[in-house]
Amino acid sequence: MRGGEVKMLNIENTIDRIRELIDNGDNAQLREELETYHSADLADIFQELKPDERLACITNINEELASDVIEYLTPQLQVEILGDIDENLASRLVSKLPHDDAADVLGNMEEDDTEAFLENLPQKFSSDVRELLTYNEDTAGGIMNPLVLTVYDNMTVKEALDTIRIKAEKDNMELYYAYVVDKNLHLVGVLSLRTLMTTPVDINVSDIMKKDIVKIHVDDYQDYIADVFMKYQFNALPVVDLYDHLKGVVTWDDAQDIVEEETTDEILQSSGIVTDLGDDDDDVLTGSIGHAIKARIPWLFITLIGEFIAVSITSKFDKTFNALPIAAAFMPLLAGLGGNIGTQSITLMVRGMSTGQITLSSGWKYILRETITGLSIGAIFGLLVMTVTWGWQNHVQLGLVVGCAMSLNMTIATMIGTCTPLILKKLNIDPAVASGPVIATTIDVIGLAIYLSLVTWYLISI
Amino acid sequence: MRGGEVKMLNIENTIDRIRELIDNGDNAQLREELETYHSADLADIFQELKPDERLACITNINEELASDVIEYLTPQLQVEILGDIDENLASRLVSKLPHDDAADVLGNMEEDDTEAFLENLPQKFSSDVRELLTYNEDTAGGIMNPLVLTVYDNMTVKEALDTIRIKAEKDNMELYYAYVVDKNLHLVGVLSLRTLMTTPVDINVSDIMKKDIVKIHVDDYQDYIADVFMKYQFNALPVVDLYDHLKGVVTWDDAQDIVEEETTDEILQSSGIVTDLGDDDDDVLTGSIGHAIKARIPWLFITLIGEFIAVSITSKFDKTFNALPIAAAFMPLLAGLGGNIGTQSITLMVRGMSTGQITLSSGWKYILRETITGLSIGAIFGLLVMTVTWGWQNHVQLGLVVGCAMSLNMTIATMIGTCTPLILKKLNIDPAVASGPVIATTIDVIGLAIYLSLVTWYLISI
Repeated sequence: MRGGEVKMLNIENTIDRIRELIDNGDNAQLREELETYHSADLADIFQELKPDERLACITNINEELASDVIEYLTPQLQVEILGDIDENLASRLVSKLPHDDAADVLGNMEEDDTEAFLENLPQKFSSDVRELLTYNEDTAGGIMNPLVLTVYDNMTVKEALDTIRIKAEKDNMELYYAYVVDKNLHLVGVLSLRTLMTTPVDINVSDIMKKDIVKIHVDDYQDYIADVFMKYQFNALPVVDLYDHLKGVVTWDDAQDIVEEETTDEILQSSGIVTDLGDDDDDVLTGSIGHAIKARIPWLFITLIGEFIAVSITSKFDKTFNALPIAAAFMPLLAGLGGNIGTQSITLMVRGMSTGQITLSSGWKYILRETITGLSIGAIFGLLVMTVTWGWQNHVQLGLVVGCAMSLNMTIATMIGTCTPLILKKLNIDPAVASGPVIATTIDVIGLAIYLSLVTWYLISI
Repeated sequence: MRGGEVKMLNIENTIDRIRELIDNGDNAQLREELETYHSADLADIFQELKPDERLACITNINEELASDVIEYLTPQLQVEILGDIDENLASRLVSKLPHDDAADVLGNMEEDDTEAFLENLPQKFSSDVRELLTYNEDTAGGIMNPLVLTVYDNMTVKEALDTIRIKAEKDNMELYYAYVVDKNLHLVGVLSLRTLMTTPVDINVSDIMKKDIVKIHVDDYQDYIADVFMKYQFNALPVVDLYDHLKGVVTWDDAQDIVEEETTDEILQSSGIVTDLGDDDDDVLTGSIGHAIKARIPWLFITLIGEFIAVSITSKFDKTFNALPIAAAFMPLLAGLGGNIGTQSITLMVRGMSTGQITLSSGWKYILRETITGLSIGAIFGLLVMTVTWGWQNHVQLGLVVGCAMSLNMTIATMIGTCTPLILKKLNIDPAVASGPVIATTIDVIGLAIYLSLVTWYLISI
């Protein structure tokens, strides 16, 4: 844990002040002021600086802090800064990172640069990082830290505590649990420090260790790992390979990063942005504009097809528009409110399923619940719209038709919005991916068809 | 940490099996099978069972496990189960919960029941929980665990380690950090176990403790606490009162729960669901239907007003619809795609701001980026729509107008969707709250006005 009283950072003032110090060339003062900030704050500050200003800052602070700051930066900035500074300094900073972070940084570089860095790094560190780089970065192997606190199953508590003391001192590792391995390095148990510290020192480790271990596999994907952490709320989980050899540990802060990433994907997908185009440059916000456009077009295109269906249905009613032009004016009202209430239902369902509150077997309760909600809100808004339309257009039948269409439309929209995510889930399709834009379009098509049929049947035909 | 190999739980089969055991009255077998599951899995299973089945399960498993299961249940189920079982058993289960969880459970009961429970609990536990209940449940005071590992600043490392050993044994507490207090219980420092275990035992604690401490205040709200945890990635944070007395500790698993809650709020708000109505019963998914309706009506009502503006503008073009009825049919197409691309932009911006990738000072970069994206996608879709419309309706001018309107509309929608969250943020309004539905409506109004003006000017007037 790094210290530093949490300052509510006023980033604009801070940056002005830092620019002033850089312009004055007052390096001693710059260093002193920068070192009062927590590395997470410095990372925020670096994000706002220009490249040459960042360079002035990173080379002026002590290397320990500089390496911590790099840990908090976005991947692009990490690569940019390490490419800009002197290569010996860069190697020293990388070698101070935890193994898993070092592998992430190097994995984001051009292949030649990665190789150059690896050759400059200490032998053991470099070979550890090389192994990490062989794993897919979205799997446990790509996320784990290979430095694990291990003790052997034939040790006593005293020997285990001594081992931990030595390892903790040498490798600067956080102490969560000690993992117990046999002589072939198979994972056989886990010990909490609490157990170790409260057990008489001559007891054997194998007698007090917990043998039924929750572990993950090097090839497990990050969404699974996030689910395991969220569900069981572990501090850290051991990672094993096919042969049950202990390969590393994934800690809760890695899990927190994954959960944030997965949540972002879920949120973006719900608005019809594709988050897994499969190319390297996979961040819609920070990647290339070409990538951002590719990520946004697919669902827009599907919406386009859906809306053309709506157009072709609507175009059949040209006689209606001819006879009662005002009828056309109410179309956006119906489509808009139907879309909104439908989106509310989808959002509730998708989020409920992703937090585990809604399961397939409890889904029917929510269908019932949402239907009642849809009927109630539909009735209220139907009445409201009827009254306003009647009063405004002085046309009681038009009021009736618009009101009824509104109430039907909102109820149907709620039901579609509730059922679709459940059906997708049942079909093993991720509800977050497919729901949003398609449903809005479906509701447009159905809602307009109902409304225009009602208008034609009730107002025009009779 | 609880053990148990993670089983991928097939919940439907499991529940069938459990029902069978309950029906057979085979309690020994039921107990044996239930106890093979992790408490988090049992909580999932309980969620699906009927009340009398739950009762059969909870009274059949050992009390340690039963209490762990209760910790993982939703608040409603916690209250329901504790009300259904024998009150002595209920008290024993509550007294096995961590203090903060016990306070949460009791805080969710009717006031009389809370009082009855508190009187049944051990004296010290009951008075600790009583104090926790005085804090607002959304503040650090309501979230923290009052059992903190503390040592005095005048201790040596040996004395500190002995103290920790005794406390860890007695109170079953997790070991993260030891907090150092002076004789008046003011928080003066923090020690990692790593430091304690790797320092010679005769050194004074006050010489090795870290004195600049990141701490939170009992009255700090949970969104602030979540931000601090996400940003600095601490394992645990000490909580102090106004006088800097150490009152408790908030650990990362509490923070994880808060982050999940805050994310849910952000997601629901983005679809126009109000998450802070201020009444007690504040969960849109599990609260009363009346509550759910109240949460959903406000933004729908604002949308209604916006859409009536769209109607009143559109209704001015009745001569246009009369002259060219097909023009009306294209309205949903324009409104739908404008709404979709605008929502994509809002979602990107709001999420980027909430993860800290987008700041006010870097906002202009994203306005530029999104404008280029909007122009590009607008051009592509404009051309596409123009071609299809022309080919389909065999009407080159209509194709031109619809295509131009589409391209303008998508570009404007992107810009509105990008700028609005930034402007709201600048005005210190939470962008997640106000963005979604209002913008969709604004885009409807502007998009339709542009389209209908173009149609009237180019196709009708000439």
